This record gives sequence, structure tokens and C-alpha cells, in this order.
Amino acid sequence: MSKVKVYCACSWFDQEQTKHMKNVYKALKENKTCDWDNSYRPLDHQYKGIAVDENPEFLDDEYQRAAWIANTYKNDISGIINSNVGVFAYVPGQETIDDGMAFELGYMTAMGKPTIVVIPDDKGQEPMNLMIAEGATQVVTLSEFHNMDLTKVFNKPFDKVVF
Amino acid sequence: MSKVKVYCACSWFDQEQTKHMKNVYKALKENKTCDWDNSYRPLDHQYKGIAVDENPEFLDDEYQRAAWIANTYKNDISGIINSNVGVFAYVPGQETIDDGMAFELGYMTAMGKPTIVVIPDDKGQEPMNLMIAEGATQVVTLSEFHNMDLTKVFNKPFDKVVF
Amino acid sequence: MSKVKVYCACSWFDQEQTKHMKNVYKALKENKTCDWDNSYRPLDHQYKGIAVDENPEFLDDEYQRAAWIANTYKNDISGIINSNVGVFAYVPGQETIDDGMAFELGYMTAMGKPTIVVIPDDKGQEPMNLMIAEGATQVVTLSEFHNMDLTKVFNKPFDKVVF
Amino acid sequence: MSKVKVYCACSWFDQEQTKHMKNVYKALKENKTCDWDNSYRPLDHQYKGIAVDENPEFLDDEYQRAAWIANTYKNDISGIINSNVGVFAYVPGQETIDDGMAFELGYMTAMGKPTIVVIPDDKGQEPMNLMIAEGATQVVTLSEFHNMDLTKVFNKPFDKVVF
Amino acid sequence: MSKVKVYCACSWFDQEQTKHMKNVYKALKENKTCDWDNSYRPLDHQYKGIAVDENPEFLDDEYQRAAWIANTYKNDISGIINSNVGVFAYVPGQETIDDGMAFELGYMTAMGKPTIVVIPDDKGQEPMNLMIAEGATQVVTLSEFHNMDLTKVFNKPFDKVVF
Amino acid sequence: MSKVKVYCACSWFDQEQTKHMKNVYKALKENKTCDWDNSYRPLDHQYKGIAVDENPEFLDDEYQRAAWIANTYKNDISGIINSNVGVFAYVPGQETIDDGMAFELGYMTAMGKPTIVVIPDDKGQEPMNLMIAEGATQVVTLSEFHNMDLTKVFNKPFDKVVF
Repeated sequence: MSKVKVYCACSWFDQEQTKHMKNVYKALKENKTCDWDNSYRPLDHQYKGIAVDENPEFLDDEYQRAAWIANTYKNDISGIINSNVGVFAYVPGQETIDDGMAFELGYMTAMGKPTIVVIPDDKGQEPMNLMIAEGATQVVTLSEFHNMDLTKVFNKPFDKVVF
Repeated sequence: MSKVKVYCACSWFDQEQTKHMKNVYKALKENKTCDWDNSYRPLDHQYKGIAVDENPEFLDDEYQRAAWIANTYKNDISGIINSNVGVFAYVPGQETIDDGMAFELGYMTAMGKPTIVVIPDDKGQEPMNLMIAEGATQVVTLSEFHNMDLTKVFNKPFDKVVF
Repeated sequence: MSKVKVYCACSWFDQEQTKHMKNVYKALKENKTCDWDNSYRPLDHQYKGIAVDENPEFLDDEYQRAAWIANTYKNDISGIINSNVGVFAYVPGQETIDDGMAFELGYMTAMGKPTIVVIPDDKGQEPMNLMIAEGATQVVTLSEFHNMDLTKVFNKPFDKVVF
Repeated sequence: MSKVKVYCACSWFDQEQTKHMKNVYKALKENKTCDWDNSYRPLDHQYKGIAVDENPEFLDDEYQRAAWIANTYKNDISGIINSNVGVFAYVPGQETIDDGMAFELGYMTAMGKPTIVVIPDDKGQEPMNLMIAEGATQVVTLSEFHNMDLTKVFNKPFDKVVF
Repeated sequence: MSKVKVYCACSWFDQEQTKHMKNVYKALKENKTCDWDNSYRPLDHQYKGIAVDENPEFLDDEYQRAAWIANTYKNDISGIINSNVGVFAYVPGQETIDDGMAFELGYMTAMGKPTIVVIPDDKGQEPMNLMIAEGATQVVTLSEFHNMDLTKVFNKPFDKVVF
Repeated sequence: MSKVKVYCACSWFDQEQTKHMKNVYKALKENKTCDWDNSYRPLDHQYKGIAVDENPEFLDDEYQRAAWIANTYKNDISGIINSNVGVFAYVPGQETIDDGMAFELGYMTAMGKPTIVVIPDDKGQEPMNLMIAEGATQVVTLSEFHNMDLTKVFNKPFDKVVF
């Protein structure tokens, strides 16, 4: 069975996002069409292994900051480049929306890579931002995402309300 | 004097965003290097001229909704394609962050188009999302943006704090 | 053995095209380097499963028509994006030439995806359109196509007459 | 007034196509937003200035043929690369449809360049191939094309019947 | 008269290269189709204005080095992105060949930007590397380059010997 | 175990380059993540199988030369297109530097493909050209390259001196 390498985009700015990220990761790990070992998870690829939310002082020095910014960004882009599909653990309708993830969705769309936005089951009826909803190849709920065949990501028209 | 066509990305989800959008538009109109008449402003290009926040009932019908979503999105992409530079009126550090705009920034970056993120003067020291800060060719304050030469948008390393 | 996902471009506007399409599909199904189940065949992916040649009345309504056009097109583009190689069942030298297929060949070429144009054995000496002949990575006859290794699609200079 | 460089795609396989090509060229020459002198017309850029329909014997020699094919194709691609907008003089609903032009439309679409398909006034109601109709940024009649502002080519949803 | 913005690629590793660079710059400055003020010259855009050949000690510190490398590279890419045409001051047939310039030529070629390789008049008969000779849109001598119309860079087949 | 198809860029202009090329090829052949049979080696794909360094007289005829140049180049580009990863056998710090390989590195970088520059172990401390060092996804020594997992090529910041 062929497997795809996934760029696992996610947010961890509040509890709901973190919980959703873990659920999506679990589903990916169990998915037989996901090459989990060769997939890219941003949190594992920060420059020098330094998480700046835990080590904010690393950014105090001008050159350390410049090096961290340029290289952590470049790491993520290399993760996009190396992956076949993007999976975006996304929680619509909340305040701490993550525009870094939206940037990555736009980037992969322009590159011509298939993308899946996964939303929590209880947010399945939330209105979504037009560019996210229509830019993604598919928007699915977590339940729909389970055991999805990731080698076959064809367009699924979004049919909920957008803004 | 040569002029560039601008994709004018913006948000209008709260008062601060709307005010900032107007300030950025005003600066663009006055900028001699901006070809304002041939620039693209998303609010002017919704499918059939229908603003769905004012006419939510247009989205009630399944096919109207599908037609509006696909074509308003495609309008915006055509605006990106037709433009030389992207200008993003962006308000960091707030709750109603706009991920549609972030999608467009990622899209233009991957396409190889220069982009400028313009932030309000009083937000000049706010930490910014890594992908936005480093993905953009330049991040500038509104004051710095005034009279900027838009024909010459070279990389300006971001030197504030990111998250 | 590694397999590739194929975008199976074809025409069905006359009997000769339909027959050739079936022959190419049969060859693909039997080809051990083709991941047939995850390959994309346009006829299986029309919006809402509606074939407009059989249900022309679906296009009578303005919004149904707009939704069908935008989404069937977008489906096909997603099929291109998800595939590794394009295979084009092409019948040169006839009147009902299909320019939709030619559009897709140009699209995949510009995206940097390998493409194979397959022509019927008895048309192997027909002059071909320059852009098709030289744009494709390979032009082969149906016999040559049988058991071709689709994981290895390197340039084969076209050596027949063009117009 | 800013002007755009146009890739002038056209066909000359029958009288109707040739007549339409001339009409589109005339309209472009008169259009103040078209930089006619720096626009690209395929017929003016064949390898060594040799038109193979008039000099078919040039293709008799294997190496002359290979050189002509590769370089005339590459000339056209360089014309696409050097242009800002593609204009396609297209006659729908006829037998001698030109798939070279369709290839170029797909190529420019994938590259992210704006494209305009111009059809004769009396073919304004003809059904069109889906990929051409939806792939192009705009489909217009010759009358609509006159004096169109070519610096501002935003998406215009196709609203006729497709096949 | 319309002007193009040029990415002015060059080498300065020996006297012959430096002399040739100056000659090409002089020709560009005098060329009425070159928008010299908005063109990009790599030597003017090193990180923090620091030329590391003159200030090698700046690279001693790990983070300064990382910041300089990432941002000087990103500056050059932004110069490529912002330009319409690449002009490469290239001296074939010598030992201190510059592969940084070759990298940039490949990059612009893949992006679909026109490129001109300019060689000294007395090197007009030198054999050239295949990828450089055929990858470039045009290879011209300095004399041919003078007063060339840079808004119209169409393919010119290379007709000298390659290796 | 999944395998990747490699574009095997190399130089053979002096003994050191040839020796290094053989070492890198040997490492690739033994690497279980390399799909060696479907990988592309430029020396095996010259037009008509003709190596022009051994048969320089083939280039004497104008049309043979034009055909060889255009098609050998196009072969190499098709090799790039068909591959998942680029591996560049590169010897820094010497006179016979190969700018064809640098062109290919720039090309793959702009296309969004992962690239690995492999240098001989005894050149691990040589300063490198900025564009090569930072453009590549990874720069590694031959020892580090052995048994590297080629399915997972994420950015590795270059930390040596550049020029």
C-alpha cells in the first residue's frame, strides 16, 4: 500500500487547538495511507531545537533572533516541499485563529499540492473564511478524516456558509 | 514614473481593522508608484456584486452558495495574478485576526510575488506570527509605508519578536 | 514495485476517440507501474455526478450552471495536482480534436509534471500539432505504451512531422 | 498610460480562423493598453524564419526537423514568458479546432498569467469546452474585446453552456 | 517608453570578471529600456551592508554567520522576484567560474523569467556549458547587448559549441 | 520501504570530480531509500546517445548541433521533473567548478524540490558559494550522506563560511 508524506499544520495557542491537534495526529498515526515517520510536524523542527515560547530569552539577541526566524521558517518550507499532502488541524469560529497555518495553506495551494482542512466534529456547521474553505482541496470533520485515503485527495466542493 | 498594480488585502471584521484598511487605502491612493485604478480590492469583486455579510440569504440556496463561493474565490485569485505586488493591511495582536489574508500572503509568496505587510504605528512592537513576519518581503508601519517606492520591494529582514 | 498515480486525460466525442480511450484505460489497468485505484478519470468526477451531455437541462439554471462549471473544472485540476504523470489518449489527424485535453497537457507541462501522449497504432505517422508533439515528454503509440515503465518518463524527442 | 505585452495566440487552419485572427490583431493594434511592438505573434517567430506549411521539405532532414521542432516550440514558450497577458483568437463550434492554442492557454493558466479568449460575435452563444471556458480569466466577444482595458484582467465567470 | 527592472547577476572573483561586470553595468545604465534605479545589484544588498570578503570576521560568530547567510540569500531571491529580466555578466572559458550566478540563472529559468547571458566580445567563440547556453533565453556578446531592447527578450537559439 | 527517485547531478571535468561522482553513485546504489533504477544520470541521456566530448565532430553540422543542444538539455530537465530529490556531487574549492550543476540546483530549488549537496570528506571545511550553500536543502559530507534517509530531506542550516 502506498503512503503519502504529510505536512501536519497545526496550532497550539489554546486548549481547544492543542486537543484538536492531538486528535488529528492520532488519526494520522493510525492511518495506513500516512507515512508518519517521514511526515513533518513543525514543533519538532524549530531552529536548534529551541521553542521560543518556552525560551523567550533566546530571541533577545539580535543575531540569534534573526537566525532563529530565518531558519525555523525555512525548516517549515522544507517540510512543505518534502511532503505530498498538507493536513491542517483547524478550529473555526474562535478567537485565537492561527494565521501561520493559513499562510501555509495558501502556500501549498499555490504550489499545487493537495490539502485537507480537518475541523472538530462539533464545529462541522460553523461558517468558514472563504479563502480557507475554497482554497483547501477538502474540508472534513475529524470523523470523516479517520481512515480517509490520503493518496486520493480530489476536490470536494465546500457546501457550508462562508464569510 | 512606472507604477505597480497592487493586490490590496485587508480585513473588515472589527473597527480597528476597518480603520486600518482605510488608512492603507488612502496611503496607496496618494502613492505615485501605485497604479490605483488597476489595483484589486476584494470588496469590489464579490460574485454578482453580492456582499454576503449584508445579504446572508443569498447563501441559503445550495447552487447560489456554490456559485458564490467558487467565483468570489476565483475573482480574488485573478486579482492576485493580475497584480505586481501584494499589500496587506494587517493588525497584529488582536482577536479577530484574518486568516483569509494570511492565506493570500502565503499564496503570493509561493507564486514569487513581492509582498508588504503594513501594521498600524502603535503596533510596531507587537510580536508577530513567524510565517507572516518572515514570509512577507517587508513588514512596515503605516508611517514607513507612506511614499514607499512600490516598484522596489526588496527583502527587509524582520527584527522584532515572533511566536 | 513503485506505482504512479495517473491523470487519465481523454476524449469521448466520437467513436474513434471512445474506442481509443478504452484501449488506453485497459493498458493502464494492466500496467504494474500504474496505481489505477488512485488515478483520476475525468468522467468519474463531474459535479454531483452529473454528466451534462446526458442531462443538459441541469445547465438551464444560471446558478446550477455556474456551480457545475466551476466545480467540475476544479475537480479536474485537483486530479492533475494529485497525480504524478499525465497520460493523454489522443487521436491525431481528425476533425473532433479535443482542446480540453490539450489545455490539460499545457497545464501539466507548465507545472513540471511528466506527460505521455498515446496515439492509436494506425496514426503513428500522422503529422502532429507542434505544441502537443514537443510539449509532451513522450509521444508513443498504443503498442509502445503497453507495459511502459510509468515511473521513468524521460524526454523522448518527437521525430515525426509537425504543423 | 501603462501598456501590457500580449502573447497573441491564434490559428490559421481555415478561412474563418484566419479572418478572426486578423480582426483580433487589428483590435489589439488599436488598443491603447496593448504594447503591440513588444507583443509576441507566433507566426513571426518560427525557427530560422521558416514556415513549414510553405516549406514542408525543410522537415525532411532528421536534424533540421529536430532543430525546427525544439526551437520553434521554445520560441513560443519564451513569448509566453515575456508577456503579461495572453489573448486567444478562438473560433468555437467548428471542425478545425486548434489544440496548440489550447495547450498555450493551459500553460499560461498554470503559470498564473491572465488570459482572454476572444470569440467572433456570431459565435457568442456557442457551447464551449469546459477547460477553455473556465480556464480562461475571461471569455469575450470581439465587440466586447474592443477597447478593453488589458491592464485589468480580472475573472469574469463564464455563463454560457459548456460541454 | 516602457522599462524593465533587471536582476544584474555578476561575479567579482578576478579582474576579468570585475571588468566585465563594470562594462555590463555601464551598458545597462545607458540602455533606455532598463529601469536602472529599480534594478537589483547583489553587491548593494548584503545583510546589514556587510561585505564578508572585506569583513571576514563578521562570520566568526555562529549566529551572525547564520543571520548573514540566510538574509543575504533571501535578499538576492527578493531581487529576482522583483525583477522582470535577468542579465548575467558571464565570462566563459576561465577558471574562476561563478556557480552562484549559474544557480540564479537556473532559478530564474524555472520561475519563467527571461534571461540574457552577456559574454565579453573576445569570448564570443568559446564553447559554453550546455545548461547555461541552452537555459538562457539569449546568449549575446557585450556589443550585441548594447542598446538591446530589454522589453522584448525572445528565445535566440544558441549556435556555438557546448560541453 | 518507500524509495525516492533521484536526479544525480555531477561533474566529470577532472579526476577529483570523476572520483567523487563515482563515490556518490556508489552510496546511492547502496542506499535503501534510493530508487536507483528509476533515477536519472545525465551521462546516460545525451541526445542519440552521443557524448560530444568523445565525438566533437557531431557538433560541426549546424542542425545536428542545434538538435543535440536542445534535446540533451530537455532530457536533463525531464530528469529533474521526473525525480523527487536532487543529489549533487560537488567538489568545492577548486578551479574546474561546474556551473551546469549549479544551474540545476537553482532550477530544482525554484521548482520546490528538495536538494542535497554532497561534498568530499576532506572538503568539509571549505568555504562555499552563498547561493549553493543556502540554496540547497542540505549540504553534507560523503560520510554523512551514506545511509541518509532520502525520503526525509528537511532543511539543515549551513554553518560553515560562505563567500
